[in-house]
Amino acid sequence: MNRFFAERALGMKASDIRELLELTQRPEIISLAGGLPNTKAFPAEQISEICKDILKNDSHIALQYSATEGIRQLRGALVDYMKSSFHVDGEVDNLIVTTGSQQALTLISMVLLNPGDLVLTTAPSYVGGIGAFRAFQAKMDTVAQDDEGLVIESLSEKLAELKTKGIKPKLIYVVPTFQNPAGVTMTEKRREEMLELATEYDVLVLEDDPYSRLRFEGQEVKPVKYFDYEGRVIFLGTMSKLLSPGLRVAWMLAPKDLSRKFAIAKQSADLCSTTFSQFIAYEFLKRGYLETHIEKIKAMYKKKRDIMLTAMDEHFPEGVTWTKPEGGMFSWVTMPEHMDSKLILMRAIKEDNVAFVIGSAFYPDGSGKNHMRLNFSHSSDDKLNEGIRRLGVTLKKEIED
Amino acid sequence: MNRFFAERALGMKASDIRELLELTQRPEIISLAGGLPNTKAFPAEQISEICKDILKNDSHIALQYSATEGIRQLRGALVDYMKSSFHVDGEVDNLIVTTGSQQALTLISMVLLNPGDLVLTTAPSYVGGIGAFRAFQAKMDTVAQDDEGLVIESLSEKLAELKTKGIKPKLIYVVPTFQNPAGVTMTEKRREEMLELATEYDVLVLEDDPYSRLRFEGQEVKPVKYFDYEGRVIFLGTMSKLLSPGLRVAWMLAPKDLSRKFAIAKQSADLCSTTFSQFIAYEFLKRGYLETHIEKIKAMYKKKRDIMLTAMDEHFPEGVTWTKPEGGMFSWVTMPEHMDSKLILMRAIKEDNVAFVIGSAFYPDGSGKNHMRLNFSHSSDDKLNEGIRRLGVTLKKEIED
Repeated sequence: MNRFFAERALGMKASDIRELLELTQRPEIISLAGGLPNTKAFPAEQISEICKDILKNDSHIALQYSATEGIRQLRGALVDYMKSSFHVDGEVDNLIVTTGSQQALTLISMVLLNPGDLVLTTAPSYVGGIGAFRAFQAKMDTVAQDDEGLVIESLSEKLAELKTKGIKPKLIYVVPTFQNPAGVTMTEKRREEMLELATEYDVLVLEDDPYSRLRFEGQEVKPVKYFDYEGRVIFLGTMSKLLSPGLRVAWMLAPKDLSRKFAIAKQSADLCSTTFSQFIAYEFLKRGYLETHIEKIKAMYKKKRDIMLTAMDEHFPEGVTWTKPEGGMFSWVTMPEHMDSKLILMRAIKEDNVAFVIGSAFYPDGSGKNHMRLNFSHSSDDKLNEGIRRLGVTLKKEIED
Repeated sequence: MNRFFAERALGMKASDIRELLELTQRPEIISLAGGLPNTKAFPAEQISEICKDILKNDSHIALQYSATEGIRQLRGALVDYMKSSFHVDGEVDNLIVTTGSQQALTLISMVLLNPGDLVLTTAPSYVGGIGAFRAFQAKMDTVAQDDEGLVIESLSEKLAELKTKGIKPKLIYVVPTFQNPAGVTMTEKRREEMLELATEYDVLVLEDDPYSRLRFEGQEVKPVKYFDYEGRVIFLGTMSKLLSPGLRVAWMLAPKDLSRKFAIAKQSADLCSTTFSQFIAYEFLKRGYLETHIEKIKAMYKKKRDIMLTAMDEHFPEGVTWTKPEGGMFSWVTMPEHMDSKLILMRAIKEDNVAFVIGSAFYPDGSGKNHMRLNFSHSSDDKLNEGIRRLGVTLKKEIED
């Protein structure tokens, strides 16, 4: 069938994560791999009540096709939510509901990226972003990241270096708060400095923010979009980590001229996102359930993070370090340089029945082998503790070998 | 913002339909334009019962992320459905759930079409297919269509002519049963002959079939996929016209090597389709509700088609002809060559408060000006009759002028 494929399809490969995750489906394995919310964090009863009401009163619109940009009432509610929870002034016309933030990543790639165009990401960066950019044959180059997020000096040097080569990146892609995979958060100062550089070099900024509402401690940090006086930032928000990923309700807030094109691209992509899900999300917001529910999730995940960090202190060998996220769902583990997380994963699965995601999945160039991503949101408290204990066993064996 | 757009985005324009439909939102307008199911055809009570059960028993999986290819139980049920209702043997591994058939059209374009690649469509053809191919910068060429669907001689000549020019099309795109927009159905003989030509010239066939289960009369025709001994046909099916378009549940059945790539492309596109919707569709099938429900829709739409055809006989002037579909949702009207449906639409909206879709929307080259598409599924019986009466008034004025 190869003769039929477009060039972009030749480079489409199942991600490392995907292939490896298939190995982790055995019931005896404790998986700290997936980036999944905890199923106990789904407000099933409230959704059930909402579904009943929608299907009684609004089925003629909730089961019908809807506007490509999203149903008007949800877009309005999300604009209000952007204001109340993110301090961002948006307009309904610039907000588009998407089928998960993943769709937004693809629409942005469709509209902005020619084959060979350059996207700057942090190293590491979110695997779904990398996948979308790659599917449209973009090139990627990376900027350093530390415990305070993207490193400004690294970005500044990279942009200057690219300019001398006559290369102008299209996008800077960041997950600035409780990053997937590293769990780190960019300071407000860096956010402002990043935007200044983006202006100086005329690059768009793509801010992907699935996690910021899940802050357990520390001071709230305003989104990059808050500092966007110019209209240079595309903001991605989602209900996936707060309400339910299975509803596939997310949104993008973008400068006006971009929004129009994104809407046209979305028309080709799926005509509209699931109308019924949009009604559920709207009612969940309107009935005031979201904020109470977020408090519940935060309490649940904070406890899990604490369990994980405590267990790592107890079980992980010397020479291994990890981030201490103030929110979100992930911690990022750094092992001695010579260690290869892919080999460690094989051993962890085979010998110790525990799984994680290898670091290289989060580097566009496949480096980052001495890292791994651990998820603390999905497992039960007991399994989390036991999973870290097992992984400690694997790591000690590897270091001793 | 133009400096940021990819080349493919420069050609992305809001469709004529979209712009014109905005004019038809006034309440006094009777719209025969949209391709929407009737809202009375939504089984809200059954869906409500199903939602209650899912959220009671399966919320931990129904509200979670799910496999990119779709939930296993729905894929299995759809394979059974392909066998029982389409006489097609499929395998679960080759069937992918999509976010509406529109997403399948885009995934296919992503995976198969380089800029400049050629797609053959009938003239007219479905506007959503044209939009998806165009978004990936494909070229399109057309093949004639008559009351028995795609004209084989036209396809044969076109393929031979292209061959002499050294051009090999990638895809033949057909909506072979109760076509959108024309309402016509390809005979089985032509389906087989089309496939023979596809084999001879080594072209893939894309069969888009949203309507075939909505047959009011006449003999059932087997899908093109039924005759696909070689694995050359991609079949698109959907729940949108049978259960609800707002759930966004459709599927594609494709040759194996293609399916794998489509799944990878879908991973970038939206990770997974709405899990909750997939559970609803699965339960609707499993509980045996679908077949009874289809009978109800067919009775409803047959009556509407009869109302429309009778009203056209009564109100449309001489020189205007139309197709008499045995199922589906559309009739296609042909006016004298010199008439321009765009001008007629302006007049119909302004003077007579009735709307339709102009023919040129369904021609990749923008021809087809003397045609219009009329939908009979969406309006109430009374409005349908009155809408046709009004349109008759507009047409008579146009012909007299």
